[in-house]
Amino acid sequence: MGFELHPNLATKDFVCDLPFCRVLLEDNQDFPWIFLVPRKAGVRNMCDLTTEERLVLMREIELCEKAMMRLFQPTQTNVAMIGNVTPQLHVHIICRFQGDLYWPDTVWGMRARPYLSTMKYQTIERIKKEILALCQK
Amino acid sequence: MGFELHPNLATKDFVCDLPFCRVLLEDNQDFPWIFLVPRKAGVRNMCDLTTEERLVLMREIELCEKAMMRLFQPTQTNVAMIGNVTPQLHVHIICRFQGDLYWPDTVWGMRARPYLSTMKYQTIERIKKEILALCQK
Repeated sequence: MGFELHPNLATKDFVCDLPFCRVLLEDNQDFPWIFLVPRKAGVRNMCDLTTEERLVLMREIELCEKAMMRLFQPTQTNVAMIGNVTPQLHVHIICRFQGDLYWPDTVWGMRARPYLSTMKYQTIERIKKEILALCQK
Repeated sequence: MGFELHPNLATKDFVCDLPFCRVLLEDNQDFPWIFLVPRKAGVRNMCDLTTEERLVLMREIELCEKAMMRLFQPTQTNVAMIGNVTPQLHVHIICRFQGDLYWPDTVWGMRARPYLSTMKYQTIERIKKEILALCQK
């Protein structure tokens, strides 16, 4: 069976495809927040990846984290694989800012204010452009 | 300046040293929960590591996650780098179980019940033994 997004991830906005992962946007205007989803069928945990695939994942996390830091200059990035609710491996990369809505607490399970449509489109384009520029280096 | 643990990490119990990371135990009897702290001075984010160091970190995360899964057989592991409160890179590896105290919510910021001393000592010994056994494979 081929790769498919879990229904909880399939509703999120597409940013771009990297060699191994699909990049998606969390619809939350208060936090620049993306997901990396390995494009391999049947992956729930990191343990479902081969060692080689984990290293590729790590390189793509690094690349996306750098892109988000360059774009948004956060105080801190939160990088996490949780998966209690959505049983498909997905890596959160979230920009956090001193004094943001929930700082210094974590943001999972908190209420989200969705983007306005123009702002969402612009955010996706900026993230996509920055990630692809770093890919070409 | 050499590697030192941030005061928030220095109070946590020592489990073992891997080639790159120090492994520490979170004092929470409800969740088998460890930290990996890269033993390199001045590291706040993953971006403060070289690409090579990130790959070594990834291998050590993989090894510790496998050890925790073998020992505790969780429903899910939560693997996360947050750092909003403690500005030294540390990777959480937390065993979560369907129906545990906070399932499926995340556990950061929740009240922790510390181990009783004998149970803590035994837990550390079990984790240390499992990690070192996997290291030798």
